[in-house]
Amino acid sequence: MPSDTDAIRDLVATWLRASKAGDLQTVLELMTDDAVFLVPGRDPMTKARFAASGARDPGGPEIDAVSEIEEVQVAGDWAYLWTKLRIVITPRDGTPPSRRAGHTLSILRRENGRWRLARDANLLAPIAEA
Amino acid sequence: MPSDTDAIRDLVATWLRASKAGDLQTVLELMTDDAVFLVPGRDPMTKARFAASGARDPGGPEIDAVSEIEEVQVAGDWAYLWTKLRIVITPRDGTPPSRRAGHTLSILRRENGRWRLARDANLLAPIAEA
Repeated sequence: MPSDTDAIRDLVATWLRASKAGDLQTVLELMTDDAVFLVPGRDPMTKARFAASGARDPGGPEIDAVSEIEEVQVAGDWAYLWTKLRIVITPRDGTPPSRRAGHTLSILRRENGRWRLARDANLLAPIAEA
Repeated sequence: MPSDTDAIRDLVATWLRASKAGDLQTVLELMTDDAVFLVPGRDPMTKARFAASGARDPGGPEIDAVSEIEEVQVAGDWAYLWTKLRIVITPRDGTPPSRRAGHTLSILRRENGRWRLARDANLLAPIAEA
């Protein structure tokens, strides 16, 4: 049995890999049905709105992310996760890529033995070209 | 004995009241020694840097905040807190106030029976004048 921390690290790796591949279904399976995504200056995004977001469909931009896990803390069937993230968003129409970097603070919940993302605060901000 | 949820609501109310009064010492007592504050586009802020921030000293601006608690979830000696916050920052030199609004996602830890803020993601963004 992998430790909870390993399972949560796997969740992050799977999430980023599926996002890059445009595999929305896999990403949706990694979150709870009541998942909420918080970003600056916008209303909270539900799972349904996440699913409807064109950014994750196969025709959307490629999202290439590198995550450093700063902290994972587990308490029973809950956990929090703090990561440092850098993403490159590359539209498929030839528009130059944009880059964002910053931190995330997420709440995870264990459901039927599987960890899933339940709340996510995304603090990424635009950065200059590399 | 107040419930954990009530105790956490009290923490939020005390924090906002002390911030408005410029009572830095009270605010510092409401956070763990390893507290980390995350905001978009900036490096994480430690408790020491929070304490050094002029924004909270008596000569700094008045910070007037209204908080709506969206969710509190407790798991043992850990909890998370999701709030919707509106703040008005009024410099004491007559400069017009600025306004920010948005959400926060925070991790709290119980230490010696008292809840304290341990991790805080602040997603507030500037808004137009009311």
